[in-house]
Amino acid sequence: MSQRIQVFDTTLRDGEQVPGCQLTTEEKVVVAKELEALGVDVIEAGFPISSPGDFRSVVEICKAVTEPTICGLTRAVEKDIEVAADALKWAKRPRIHTGIGSSDVHIQHKFNSTREQILERAVAAVKYAKKFVEDVEFFAEDSGRADLQFLAKLTEAVIGAGATVVNLPDTTGYLLPDQMYDRISYLFENVSNIHRATISMHCHNDLGLATANTLAGIRAGARQVEVTINGIGERAGNTSLEEVAMALKVHKDLGFETGIDSRRLYPMSKLVSEMMRMSVQPNKAIVGRNAFAHSSGIHQDGHLKNASNYEIITPEEVGVPQSEIILTARSGRAALRHRLQLLGFQFEKLDLDRLYDRFLLMADERKMIHDRDLMELVG
Amino acid sequence: MSQRIQVFDTTLRDGEQVPGCQLTTEEKVVVAKELEALGVDVIEAGFPISSPGDFRSVVEICKAVTEPTICGLTRAVEKDIEVAADALKWAKRPRIHTGIGSSDVHIQHKFNSTREQILERAVAAVKYAKKFVEDVEFFAEDSGRADLQFLAKLTEAVIGAGATVVNLPDTTGYLLPDQMYDRISYLFENVSNIHRATISMHCHNDLGLATANTLAGIRAGARQVEVTINGIGERAGNTSLEEVAMALKVHKDLGFETGIDSRRLYPMSKLVSEMMRMSVQPNKAIVGRNAFAHSSGIHQDGHLKNASNYEIITPEEVGVPQSEIILTARSGRAALRHRLQLLGFQFEKLDLDRLYDRFLLMADERKMIHDRDLMELVG
Repeated sequence: MSQRIQVFDTTLRDGEQVPGCQLTTEEKVVVAKELEALGVDVIEAGFPISSPGDFRSVVEICKAVTEPTICGLTRAVEKDIEVAADALKWAKRPRIHTGIGSSDVHIQHKFNSTREQILERAVAAVKYAKKFVEDVEFFAEDSGRADLQFLAKLTEAVIGAGATVVNLPDTTGYLLPDQMYDRISYLFENVSNIHRATISMHCHNDLGLATANTLAGIRAGARQVEVTINGIGERAGNTSLEEVAMALKVHKDLGFETGIDSRRLYPMSKLVSEMMRMSVQPNKAIVGRNAFAHSSGIHQDGHLKNASNYEIITPEEVGVPQSEIILTARSGRAALRHRLQLLGFQFEKLDLDRLYDRFLLMADERKMIHDRDLMELVG
Repeated sequence: MSQRIQVFDTTLRDGEQVPGCQLTTEEKVVVAKELEALGVDVIEAGFPISSPGDFRSVVEICKAVTEPTICGLTRAVEKDIEVAADALKWAKRPRIHTGIGSSDVHIQHKFNSTREQILERAVAAVKYAKKFVEDVEFFAEDSGRADLQFLAKLTEAVIGAGATVVNLPDTTGYLLPDQMYDRISYLFENVSNIHRATISMHCHNDLGLATANTLAGIRAGARQVEVTINGIGERAGNTSLEEVAMALKVHKDLGFETGIDSRRLYPMSKLVSEMMRMSVQPNKAIVGRNAFAHSSGIHQDGHLKNASNYEIITPEEVGVPQSEIILTARSGRAALRHRLQLLGFQFEKLDLDRLYDRFLLMADERKMIHDRDLMELVG
């Protein structure tokens, strides 16, 4: 029996706050409905107090979406919580996401406060949010750099105050996967009431480790992942939804599953990339243009013999029509023969060898060899 | 005392074979010289037998670069090795990189062979390469999915045959970091002569885990990393040089260092991206356009109070001029005040509150607020 991992999508909150990614309310509703179809469990729809437009977007998403929980972000401030509760009134399953900095660098330099005061404010915020909704998630900002004993105390206190989910963000993308595993394991060993709440991973990708850190957290006991489509988000972005979903799918042996319909990943990636004007690099895992392209001779030959030589995921599985073979000077005879066959040509070994030599000269010069170049070569 | 990790850059081989990334010999020489200035230890310059153009490029890189070792790729085939040796004749420090598939899926479906035959071919290839150069690296293709006992036997055999480096590629980007750690640890425990060679990590990013897997390998004993600028490469690409270099730098406590001059990372990324026509997504770790941009109100406020609240790496450290603050509807009062001050305006608290309300309306409508919008707002 696989254990279910809750997928908490924050494309419309942590993703949308990125320069150039702002969406209109109507656009956000389109994305939210697609996220619902994709199978996410929670949609973080916005930060209602931040602006009238964001408030309106949360309201409209609540009205448009029925299956996933709809979550609104707040600081640990009463007014924020009231406004979020107001925006979430139309949600079938509302969640307030409140929290405060937990590392000493945040406590001292951002809040000019002390650990004791932060703990009190955290508990007060959770209790206040519980007056409005049953489902309250607490975030311990910059928990990746927080003192671990203090973090355990804070986690225990907010669960005691009624938090249903405790989110432990690595806000600066600082941790290494084994450090994340050790820290989350420590909390599971030292927070007496931890099984009364769901522990959530919220990683940033500043060192390129967000997906690995998220998986390390799951291994240590976390059961919710906070992710965005294409890994967009503040700075180097958040954990990529598609990477975590497919890593768990490819590694079924780990015993975890999500509600994600993987065949919708590629279309979803395209939608968000186009709507938010955020390009996806060709070599992006799972959803990049080249993620299923094979170009080198060794790889093309192996791939033609048996796709499993170079593919652990089929393109169909994530909604990409088919693997693409592009010829270059690094392509081998097998790829050239295959391509020519698709164009209707057959060659004896000797002819092919001769043709291949001319092909290489052409490819050195033209870089990418399209079908029209092959026609020229043959004809 | 930090242990030195060898950085083996394969931008010009595994990177260059990607559709659309092909470079001329002259362009490759430019990149190679910049890689030398960046401080890489090994440059994989090409796959000499693959085409006359690639052969010429390896020759010219050998002539142009003096510090790093220059490496040429071959299959475990005598003719490949002879041609590579020929291309490397001008190198001060030549290395031949030869190898063969090591997983059963590759052995059966790609080579139509047996483990015993593969082992013989591997040993023969290393011995043959040793006739031409002292420094011979062996790659065990698809080792991430290879039977571990067989991989240990193969590793021991090629080291016995004289391999100075054994490269254990996760060709399909399949492994999870803890699996990688366990596998490399197993080899260190079960290959009797392993300390006579350097173990090298060559990871692919199909699940977004290349950097984490590379670091896991180092933790288990590997001392060379095979990487590319911007993580370009076959399909979802190779491990990003910049991510591994900065992860080791940020986490000095691990006790590893590289020869990389981090201030050259951003310019290097730009050069490769432009020359190879491979876009870097804005949310790419270390070198993305947004990697040091702060846009949300909470983040901007914290960042203005103290950069360490949200930055584990300074932009200067990787050659980016400065952190950028862009105003949106998610920006707070602190960011607005700061930006207005830079434009020469001062406001009392009350005036600022009033201005902020109007700012939010404008930001909801216009998405990104530039200085000219602020002038309009104020004026």
